[in-house]
Order: sequence, then structure tokens, then C-alpha cells
Amino acid sequence: MTNILSQIKSPDELKNLDKQQLLQVAADLREKIVETVATNGGHLGSSLGVIELTIALHRVFDSPQDQIIWDVGHQAYAHKLLTGRQDNFGSLRQKDGVSGFPKRAESEHDTFGVGHSSTSISAALGMAAGRDIVGDDNKVIAVIGDGSLTAGMAFEGLNHAGHLKQKLVVILNDNEMSISPNVGALSSFMSRKMTSENFIRFKKETENMLSYVPGIGRDLVNLAKRAEESLKSFMTPGMLFEGFGFDYFGPLDGHNLDELTETLHNVAQIKGPVLLHVLTKKGKGYKPAENNPPKFHGIGPFNSQTGETTGTSGGVAPSYTKVFGDTLIDLAQKDERIVAITAAMAEGTGLSKFSEVIPERFFDVGIAEQHAVTFAAGLACRGLRPVVTIYSTFMQRAYDQVLHDVCLQNLPVTFALDRGGLVGADGPTHHGVFDLSFMRHIPHLVFAVPRNEVELQRLMKTATLSEGPFAYRYPRGNGVGLPLLEDIDPIELGCGELLREGDDGLVVAVGELVNEAMIAADQLSEEGIQIAVVDARFVKPLDSHLIISQAEKAPFVLTAEENALQGGFGASILELLSDTGLMTPVLRIGIPDHFVSQGTQGDLRSQLGLNAEGIVNRIKQATALTDSSETKVGQG
Amino acid sequence: MTNILSQIKSPDELKNLDKQQLLQVAADLREKIVETVATNGGHLGSSLGVIELTIALHRVFDSPQDQIIWDVGHQAYAHKLLTGRQDNFGSLRQKDGVSGFPKRAESEHDTFGVGHSSTSISAALGMAAGRDIVGDDNKVIAVIGDGSLTAGMAFEGLNHAGHLKQKLVVILNDNEMSISPNVGALSSFMSRKMTSENFIRFKKETENMLSYVPGIGRDLVNLAKRAEESLKSFMTPGMLFEGFGFDYFGPLDGHNLDELTETLHNVAQIKGPVLLHVLTKKGKGYKPAENNPPKFHGIGPFNSQTGETTGTSGGVAPSYTKVFGDTLIDLAQKDERIVAITAAMAEGTGLSKFSEVIPERFFDVGIAEQHAVTFAAGLACRGLRPVVTIYSTFMQRAYDQVLHDVCLQNLPVTFALDRGGLVGADGPTHHGVFDLSFMRHIPHLVFAVPRNEVELQRLMKTATLSEGPFAYRYPRGNGVGLPLLEDIDPIELGCGELLREGDDGLVVAVGELVNEAMIAADQLSEEGIQIAVVDARFVKPLDSHLIISQAEKAPFVLTAEENALQGGFGASILELLSDTGLMTPVLRIGIPDHFVSQGTQGDLRSQLGLNAEGIVNRIKQATALTDSSETKVGQG
Repeated sequence: MTNILSQIKSPDELKNLDKQQLLQVAADLREKIVETVATNGGHLGSSLGVIELTIALHRVFDSPQDQIIWDVGHQAYAHKLLTGRQDNFGSLRQKDGVSGFPKRAESEHDTFGVGHSSTSISAALGMAAGRDIVGDDNKVIAVIGDGSLTAGMAFEGLNHAGHLKQKLVVILNDNEMSISPNVGALSSFMSRKMTSENFIRFKKETENMLSYVPGIGRDLVNLAKRAEESLKSFMTPGMLFEGFGFDYFGPLDGHNLDELTETLHNVAQIKGPVLLHVLTKKGKGYKPAENNPPKFHGIGPFNSQTGETTGTSGGVAPSYTKVFGDTLIDLAQKDERIVAITAAMAEGTGLSKFSEVIPERFFDVGIAEQHAVTFAAGLACRGLRPVVTIYSTFMQRAYDQVLHDVCLQNLPVTFALDRGGLVGADGPTHHGVFDLSFMRHIPHLVFAVPRNEVELQRLMKTATLSEGPFAYRYPRGNGVGLPLLEDIDPIELGCGELLREGDDGLVVAVGELVNEAMIAADQLSEEGIQIAVVDARFVKPLDSHLIISQAEKAPFVLTAEENALQGGFGASILELLSDTGLMTPVLRIGIPDHFVSQGTQGDLRSQLGLNAEGIVNRIKQATALTDSSETKVGQG
Repeated sequence: MTNILSQIKSPDELKNLDKQQLLQVAADLREKIVETVATNGGHLGSSLGVIELTIALHRVFDSPQDQIIWDVGHQAYAHKLLTGRQDNFGSLRQKDGVSGFPKRAESEHDTFGVGHSSTSISAALGMAAGRDIVGDDNKVIAVIGDGSLTAGMAFEGLNHAGHLKQKLVVILNDNEMSISPNVGALSSFMSRKMTSENFIRFKKETENMLSYVPGIGRDLVNLAKRAEESLKSFMTPGMLFEGFGFDYFGPLDGHNLDELTETLHNVAQIKGPVLLHVLTKKGKGYKPAENNPPKFHGIGPFNSQTGETTGTSGGVAPSYTKVFGDTLIDLAQKDERIVAITAAMAEGTGLSKFSEVIPERFFDVGIAEQHAVTFAAGLACRGLRPVVTIYSTFMQRAYDQVLHDVCLQNLPVTFALDRGGLVGADGPTHHGVFDLSFMRHIPHLVFAVPRNEVELQRLMKTATLSEGPFAYRYPRGNGVGLPLLEDIDPIELGCGELLREGDDGLVVAVGELVNEAMIAADQLSEEGIQIAVVDARFVKPLDSHLIISQAEKAPFVLTAEENALQGGFGASILELLSDTGLMTPVLRIGIPDHFVSQGTQGDLRSQLGLNAEGIVNRIKQATALTDSSETKVGQG
């Protein structure tokens, strides 16, 4: 069959296609998405699951006048392909390429930038309220997954929407599988769909009985009683949303184009808030993804024929995530107080194995970072040592809980921040480059950053010995390849490490930039510049004795961090030196005051000078020796 | 009657009292609480509303083995009086006195420190899960108000609790009035209590009909149909919570001691999560508070006979809150794009009048700071200029939304942070001393701090002209007494002000500390020390030209802020000077790295040196002239 997709330049054109053509568009979209993700990596399952829904939305509504808001947005590939981004879709998630998420700057059809979960209802309600204030009459449609509905923010949005009564369509994309299998009582609501159907059948039968049989006495009473008793357990998703003031429609087969189109047409006419419940299958139409949804949620390059992941294999060091997960099991087996908590990311944070080995001390709270942190505070009140494992960027959701519920009370909760620093292709919504700045100023909190996987193991051990709150962050990607410790010795709290001596300058760094500084020091040494390198290890408390004693004798200090320069690690060194009255000049490298776009971690680091080369260059500038290292060597 | 309360040293003793004696304890508690709050100020209505509930809880449960967690905690005065804090209750909310909120360090009966809303279910569930892990068998009870239930975090906790099935009692203290009248669809749920009773009666009657009348044909069918159609609208709070996996009991009269005690006894036996719905009246037993709940929610000193507030009146400058509220109306009347948003604090943030004058552009979203911010982002996408007005300390809840939903997309949302800086008697849970640190590093955000109410007006105007995100923070309390502007001229973006010249040192400050610096400069001048003073006005972007040009010629720079020193305004000056290569020594005053306790704003500022005297002292130290100002004058 011909490829129809390639002829579609604007979503309007979908309105002129017949059913066969639309089915072909769906097939074309699937092919294009599988091909592209197989090459570039990305989110596959969710996008494949909403192909028909996306087509139906763009047939019924007039984007961008009608505003479609995708929650999280990793399911919006079909939307992107139908709204003018086919030609450069091959650049998906690459530097300067198409974003993996809707992005206002990329297209007028991307009405709201997303990446973090559960923002769509709030944003859509704002747009609907704004529409009514300015006197416009377009439609606003939020598409949210069942997993995203477990976050409190989605509930806040629902609650306000039901109260405001603004015209608004919320589509619940129910695939019964968020990133992890859905947790929480709400998912029981959802799974009562069948029960709901049974209920309706039961009531229909009752009606029939009543109309055909004239005198029935006791049986009828029993029937009525049964109905009454069953009432509570017949609580359906529909009743939940109706209770919140929404008109509820569904559940609907999310892969039936005709049914979707017709229902969307009808729903669009309703004056108040409407919830349309749509059932979809993650990975729909691509067998490997249908059979293994977690694997194909977010995936690296793979063979599109077999579904086997390609790329590097063998000989590579384990990821920080894996080291964290394995080490936590080890520590927890020796310390009964340790409890692991994830917010719907058991797989992503390396806790899946923990959940199998020590299920009684493992909690997946759903997409609910706020609750995760305060739940951990409660556990700590009972003498336990919870380890809350959340990506750095998602911990932003729980800043208040970290401060108010854990640190103010000085409770021994550990925050394991995975994906600290630049994450690569997921881009600005996912880089974990603010944690040092938004957590460093919180009293009582210890914050450590390991430079390799063994330091991570040792700092994890240190955290278990701490009597107060403790955070450590580690990067996305593989460790440096050191043999892991079986018998883990902790690092002393607040203790940095002098890794190299040198009189011509001092680098104080945290995380993998320490290793880059060591490489830089080697290179500079060849040019006669001898640089001292300190691994601060702790952003808080700083090893002030070590750092000051080194800074005192250094002509300059260069700080290096994969974090915002504003208020980050370098700023803490400025504060320390200033408070000490030390006038050694300080240079800082880190993330400047802008959001960093997508790209490979390597490219982004190069671009920002966050590697050995960047350190060398900066130090050469500082020593003003770029062209006169000969002289320096002569002097040495 | 004798005062029985004064004889109660431990909550256990309640178990031996008869009903008359318990009623007397309730009366004693009311008297003591009214008296104390009349003198010290505090939260009155909520504490009076839960007197009977508190007594019943301490009769039925064994605190502290059984763990009671009060949500927000401003209703816990009776709990404090019954658990060993009668003797020093007169020091409520005063320096070194009894905290206005449960506080772990204060008593073993305060099982979880609170202050911010909606944390109790999460904390209680953590304690319940912890109990089961360590193999204990005590009870865990969370008491949460209906207002607190609108926050997403409470929903996250409910959802997880229903899933875990741990034994846990959640008491919904339903007074149909949180701080502001309750908003949100959830409050409609609650108000359906009567409907629910009607429903039960309706069903009973149906049963009766069915059992007594043998043949009824068409009528019965109609009845059944009516029941079916009504089903959805008969959604009750009970069904909501049952749907979430809780056993539901209630609603119950929260002022009937016998009924409360009996029900709590029964509920305590249930194995899984239970929700007990209790109806209480805010201010119960004290007429002035019953008649005007908002006034007596949080109140300053008042005459306990009349309910009239005492204290200063007449001749005092209007509060920053009032100036903000009035000015926003003025601006909004001239600019149709301006929309005001509050999170259940219309009164506290000065927006009540706005809600009356321009209701179509006013939104109270309930206790839902996260939603408030992203809802505003949606409004901004429609060309509006939302002003999100939230206390500094509560904005901590929405850090991720500020960063990810507003600033990443560079949307023109304004954040008006009331209660920035030290707030006084509410203490460490409420001081707004982190906002500069947790917001300064967010790219695209402008952050301004006015030194007086006229500067606030002008910065508010500046914000309306901005095309991107803009935050300003202003303190709790009255302005300095300047005549307000009718025709407001904006301050140029990023433009500081040199208020005083001087060669012996430079103070760069923000907020009211600018005024303190001017007083300090006058005093120092008398001693021959001439200090220049710059009002930075903008923490971001800094007026780098002005600050550098002044710092270049100054022997030292002193920064002053009512914010955490770590990563705050002073840190931004360190960053600026370091990046510029300027070696002028920098001294910083602000909040050191610990949580600040309760006390009057004046006392706390004195203690921390955050006033003219503190500035004078610090500068004298810096110039090493404490004992030799004569010499200096001689040299000058």
C-alpha cells in the first residue's frame, strides 16, 4: 500500500480521508515510530498505544485553535508526525532535533510543554478558564494516563475543574500499566470496569423481572437488599468522576477509530467538564512491545524486526542504577532498618530486584513523590531507615516535604537521587541539574556526590550510619568500571579527598567531574602545569579544613559540578572562602543560567565545557599560559 | 465548679473520669484556650472545634504508644494541654515557649511535626507500615480537616493507604470551613451528607413497599428506574472513601463525647484502613468565634469577653498584604489580562476584596499550590497575566511547577510571595526564609524584593510589563508608612538604586534590610564611618553594573537579606564579584544554616543581627574600628 502519512502536511487533511485511508495512516504511523525509535531510542509503548486516539482527536478537533494537552508527553509521537514534523522526525531526541516531548517552541500544535507527570488537567483548566475570560469558544482537551492520575496534582486539577464547571474534555487513557504496574487504590477503581458492566446487566435484569412478573414477594426484597449491599462495591470509575462533577463516558475501545471519532464528536458538544475513559494497549500493533511493556516504555536503539536491543554489550561497567540497586539489597540484608521506596519507578531506579528479594521492606507508592517523602518520614519515626529513590528531576516535586517533613525534624531519611546531572536525549524537562541548588540550603541535610560506583557504595553505607537526613546523587549511565566492594567501608561524614597535589592551581570538584579533573591534571602536567585535585565528596557539610588548607596555597581554585552555577556547589565554595576571609580567586564551571537542551550526554558536556578538555581550557585561561607554557616550565 | 483540667498531668487520667467530669474538662479546656489565645494570639477556631474529639481520642487510645498525628496542627491546643504542657501553656507561640504546632522535640505525644497542610495521612501510613515491619501492634490515628483534603498530597496518601491495607484510622474532621470556605468538587461530596441520609430512607421505604404490597406493576418499575438514575448523584463521601479501600463510618456529631468514644472504640478494632467522618463546628463554645470563623482562624490578641481584637490601632501603616491586595485591584482594573489566584488564602493574602470587585478574574483553587501554579501557566498560554499569590513557605510545595511548567516555558506568570522572611510566632514551619535560595537558580525567572510598600507597588507594575516569569516577595507586617502611589510608575527591570554614597564600605541589601542599612549608615556616619548603601531590588537579574561599580571602590561589601545565607542573595553577590574577578571582601548577614525558632519578628531579627544594630556591629568588626573610631575619624 502507498504511504499516506507522508502526504499529510497538516492535521486538517485527516478530515478528508475515508476509513481505509485512516487505517493506513495508523499503520504508517506505527511503522514510522517503530523505525525511528529503533534507531534513536525513545518512548515506544505509549505512543503506539494512542495512534487511533491521536488520529481521532485531530479529525474531530481543529488544532491548534482547539488545544490538545498531552500529559507527560512521551505518547505524542503520532501527534508530532501529524502536525508538520515528519521531515525532521529522524532527529527525534537528538541534538537540535525534534523533542521527545511536546514543546511550545517547536510547534503551535504543542500547546503546553510537558515532561513531568500529571500537569495536563491543571494546564488545560487554565486554558479553558482563560478562553472564557477572553471570550473565545475553542475546545480544550487534556489526555492523561491512568498512572499519571495517581499524582496528587492531577487530583487537585480534577477537584478544581469539577468546581469551576468550565467546558473541558479530559481523556483518561487507561492502559492499566503506567511505567510500573499501577499501584494505589485508584487502580482498583479502574479495574472495576467489568464489575460496572455486570452491575448494569444486573440492574437491567431486575427491571425486566419487575415489568414482566406481577407478584413476587420475598424474592424481590432479597434482590433489592442484595443490590443495596452491593452498592458500595459497585463503585465505578464513572461514579468517581461524576462525583467530582464531570460527565463520564466510557470505557471505550481506544483502538476503534469509528467509535472514538463518534464519541469525541458527541463529547465536544457538552457544556461542562467531561471525562472520556478510553482503553488502550501499550505497544499496540508491535508484538515485541505488546509482550513486554516495561522494556518498551523507554528504550535505547533496538532491532525493529526482533525487538532485541542493539548497541554496546559486554565489557561495559554496570550502570550506577544497577550498582545502587544491588548495593541496597546488600546493605538491607545486613541492616533490618533499611526500607526502599520508589515512586512508580522500580525498574528505572534499579529497585525491581529489591522488591523481589525483600518485598516486606519495599514500597512502590505510585507517581506520588510528595507522599513518598513524607511516608518515609513516618517510617523514620518508627526507627527505620527509609531510602527514597527518585530521579533528581522528579524530586523537585517533593522539595517542601524534604524540607518541612524530613529535615526540619532531622529524621534519618536517605534520598537517593538517580539521574543527577545531564541525562541526554530526554532534554530540559529531565536534566537533574538543580538538586544541589534546591537542596543544599536546607538545614540538617547532608548531601554527597560520588565520583564513581565504589564511592557510591561507600556513601550509601555512610548514609545508613547517619542519624539525620542524607542525600546522594549519581548520574545516568555506566560507572567507570571499578571492581565493586563486597565488604563496604563507609566514608567519614564530611570528609573530602585530596587526590593529587600541585602548586599551580586547585580543582575542587564533585561527581564524575573529579575524574575529568584528574585527566585534565595529567594533560596539564605534560605542559608543566601542576594542578591539585580535591574530590569534595560532600557538598554539605563541606570538608572545610581540607579545602581551605589547599585553597590557601593555591593561586586559584576551580570548582566543577554538573549542576546550576547559581547557588550550587561552586557557590558553596565561594561562601566558604568568603566566610573564611580567604581571597584566593575562584573560577566555576557548571551549568550556566539557562535550560540545557537535548543531546547526548557527551555532546552536552563538551558544549558546556564539563569535561577534561573544558577544565584544561579554563585552567589555561586562568593561568594565562595558553601561549606561554614554555616560560612556565622554565620557571618551574 | 472546680477546674479539673489543672489536675490532669497525663492523658491516661482521662480514662478514670465520669461523663460530668469530662464535660467539665471540655469547659476548662475551652476557657484556658480562649484566655491564652486572647493574650498571645494564635489559632482559635480549629482548636475549639476539636475539644471533644481530643478528649475522646485520649480516652480511647494510649498516647504516646498509640500515635496521633494532627494535620497542620493548629487544632492541637487541647492535645497539648492534656499531654503535660499546661504549666507553660501561657508561653504559647512565644520565644522559647510552647509551639503553636505539634513538634517532636517538645513532647513524645507530638508524634509528627506539622505546620504545612495535608501531610498527616502520609506520615501516619509510614508509621503504620513501620509498626508492621518492626512487629509492634499500636494504633496510628491521623486527624485531617476537610480543607486539607483538597491538597493532592492527602489524595496520594489515601490512595496508597487504600492499596496497602495497613491498619490505620483516619479521622476526617469536617467543619465545612477550612481557612477560606472550602472550594473544589470534593466539598460537594461532603455536602451530600444529607442526600446520603435521604437515599438510605428512600431505599428503606422502597423495601417496605416491596414487602407489604404484593402486586404493583408499573409503579415499581418507575421507582426502580428513578433509583437507577439517581444512583450517580447519590455519590456520598462514604462511597468515595470505600472506593479507595477504606472502611467508612459516619458522619458523627463531633461534639458528642459518648458517641465519639464508643465509635472510636469500635473503629480501633478494625484490621484495615478506616475513615471516621466527624462533624465539628469551628469555634465551638465561644460565640464570637462561632459567629465569625475566618476572623478567629488565626488571630492576634483580643478581648476574651467581647471578641474585639486589641493591640495597636490607628496611625499604623497598612500591611504589605493590604497594599498588595489594593494595588492588584488597581492594576487589574487598568489591565484586563491580570488574573488573581489564591490557594485557599484569599483573606490571608489580601485578595478578598479582589474576589468581590473582579470575581470573573479571581480563582481560589483550594489548598492546592501545585495546581495553582500550573493552572496559572495555562492562563498565561491564553495571553493572560496571572498573579499567583501564595505565602513564601507554602510556595515550597510548587517548586517543580514553578520550574518545569512556568519558567522552562518562559511564561508570564507572576508569583507574589507574601510572608517572605521571618514571620514570628508561627515559627520554623512558617518562616519564608528559603525562597531566594530555592527560586534564584531557576532560569528565566526575575526575582525582586521591595524595601517598602511603594516599591512593592512599583515592582508589581514592573511585573505586569514583563514577558516572562516574575516573582516578588514582601514581608509579614506593616509597611513603613509611605503615602501610596495612585499613578504607579514601574521600576526598570534589573535596576537597583544607590541610596547613599560613602567610601568606607558598601552595603548591598534587599527588602526592609535596606532601610535598616540606611539607619546603620546614619549611626556609623556619626562615628565617622561613611557607608554607601545600594538597594539591589532585584535578586535576579542583579544590577551588575551598579553593584560592581560600587564594589570596585569599596573596601568591603556587606550583603544583607532575610533569607538563608546558603545560596541566597549574598551568595549571588559572591558569584557576581567572583565572575567579574573583583577581589573586594564580602561579608554576609542573613539566616544561618539552621531552622529559626518562634518569637516576635523583632526578637528574632535582633537575635540574628538582621537589623540596623546588627549591620553596625558587623561593619565595625569589619573595619576593625570597634575601639578605634577616633583614629579613623582622624584619618578621614
